[in-house]
Amino acid sequence: MSEFLELISFIRKEINHSINKLPIPDSPAYLYDPIKYALKGRGKRLRPILTHLVGRAYKSDPNSIMNISLAIELLHNFTLIHDDIMDKDTIRHGKKTIHHKWDVSTAILAGDGIYTIAQLVLNTIDSKGKEIIKFFNEVTLDICEGQAMDKEFENLDVISESLYLEMIKKKTGSLIVASAVLPSIYANEKMDNTELFLTFGECLGKGFQIHDDLLEITSDSKIMGKSLDSDLFEGKQTIMVIKAKQYFKESWNNLILSSKKSELRKNVFDFLNEKKIIHETRNIAESYFRKSRKILKKLKHINTEELLMFIDLVEKRSF
Amino acid sequence: MSEFLELISFIRKEINHSINKLPIPDSPAYLYDPIKYALKGRGKRLRPILTHLVGRAYKSDPNSIMNISLAIELLHNFTLIHDDIMDKDTIRHGKKTIHHKWDVSTAILAGDGIYTIAQLVLNTIDSKGKEIIKFFNEVTLDICEGQAMDKEFENLDVISESLYLEMIKKKTGSLIVASAVLPSIYANEKMDNTELFLTFGECLGKGFQIHDDLLEITSDSKIMGKSLDSDLFEGKQTIMVIKAKQYFKESWNNLILSSKKSELRKNVFDFLNEKKIIHETRNIAESYFRKSRKILKKLKHINTEELLMFIDLVEKRSF
Repeated sequence: MSEFLELISFIRKEINHSINKLPIPDSPAYLYDPIKYALKGRGKRLRPILTHLVGRAYKSDPNSIMNISLAIELLHNFTLIHDDIMDKDTIRHGKKTIHHKWDVSTAILAGDGIYTIAQLVLNTIDSKGKEIIKFFNEVTLDICEGQAMDKEFENLDVISESLYLEMIKKKTGSLIVASAVLPSIYANEKMDNTELFLTFGECLGKGFQIHDDLLEITSDSKIMGKSLDSDLFEGKQTIMVIKAKQYFKESWNNLILSSKKSELRKNVFDFLNEKKIIHETRNIAESYFRKSRKILKKLKHINTEELLMFIDLVEKRSF
Repeated sequence: MSEFLELISFIRKEINHSINKLPIPDSPAYLYDPIKYALKGRGKRLRPILTHLVGRAYKSDPNSIMNISLAIELLHNFTLIHDDIMDKDTIRHGKKTIHHKWDVSTAILAGDGIYTIAQLVLNTIDSKGKEIIKFFNEVTLDICEGQAMDKEFENLDVISESLYLEMIKKKTGSLIVASAVLPSIYANEKMDNTELFLTFGECLGKGFQIHDDLLEITSDSKIMGKSLDSDLFEGKQTIMVIKAKQYFKESWNNLILSSKKSELRKNVFDFLNEKKIIHETRNIAESYFRKSRKILKKLKHINTEELLMFIDLVEKRSF
């Protein structure tokens, strides 16, 4: 594993290096200062790392894979910047969000600019460009749909688990799907196998998001590098909130209404822990990680060892 | 001319028909309701009409030209939606803007969605796709830069005419450039001639924007279908404001400070009229329209008659 962690660290450094080398102009500063600020963020770069690992499994040209992975990371940053405005989040990766550090207009434009740069980076791909760009933009529309569902859910008291899973499949899963599928398209893989990567990405994405929801409740906000309590107040639905409302509607509502802001997170954790909802949710996340491993094992013509270790990494991450 | 106006009206109807036929889903309504609302707007569709006229000059396949023109109109709508948030505009084409009818989050997401749909429409082009997509996204980045410059100018008291022209070249001109250049790239035109279309678009774009600035001062806001006074209060720079500050700094500042809100526009008009700034500005617009005609005359291998009539149309528009 430690050799694998060194590989991951190496790829992350290369990705950061390539991001720093993007030809972002200095002027107009109103547009490019916040873009540079966003791209210097301390993101974990998990999505582009996944792209590189799939590219390595196919022994693809690393430079082309780098461009695909950069487009994915840029798309990710674009959606974070706009989502942070909509969700009124003030901290991201331990730094002020753009709309908080500057203002909403600056953040809208920075997001637009980053997404456009992503399209330009993708345009340099030397093979299968049209298919790759098509999939990339279909995924972007999925992400928009997922964010729209998430916003709709804020105004609904009760939503079903299946609707929640549909939402995270689009909002979070689709970009993880793209991270795995695009290098497979680039490698000219057979449709059937590319579809395996699609299902792999969906399962990994669901596992990732549910694990993330768990971390929001169980982790220290300093470690997570973002403000955690806001989601509970904004009425964000997670699989745990859905289960709590489903099984213990009255006592859950009492808990939310009666808790002081400073005690809310601890009270929520104790409640979900005692009612075994945290345990149950962890099981669901594990089942998705298990499924994603199972799918990889069907891909017999490539070496998926690093991808299996990547799943371990995602499953065990604590921030 | 009346035959030409019938042609324009026919193309506009066809464009609106194609926009209505775009496969926009119903759900999630949070995303797609405002997108449908925006696309049903009563825009003049001047940019996609220009694309069709260039396509006609080359006798290109109308279906492919339609897709290029739709992508341009979608890009235009995306930038309007986000700009309206940034500029706090509440009325557009006689209808409430999205952030005003719904909220800022809805408008951000609707813009993102429309831009993504533009990319997907462009992806269907059957020839020269990669070049077209590259140019399209370069233009989008230019538009972002232009909007950034415009926002920067709001905080500056004095800017030069040349900086203003650089800003409108990017913010307004680049999309008009794209409307002319993309069908020329699609027609596999020689680089030299495509560059003529680029310069043509730049001149037409500058003429268009300066004419637009004149209309803001001289027209009825009901006819223009948007709130006009806001620009004066937001400190928007136009070529007329720049000239007024340059030649008559003190009396201009007095006029702005001492005018009641209800009288501001009339006072500004009287001032600019009396000081011959309106006359001078009209001359500048005319010179750009003249230049754009001159460039077209260099394109001898295609019939540019309809494009020349299009310039007349743009120059004479009163709203």
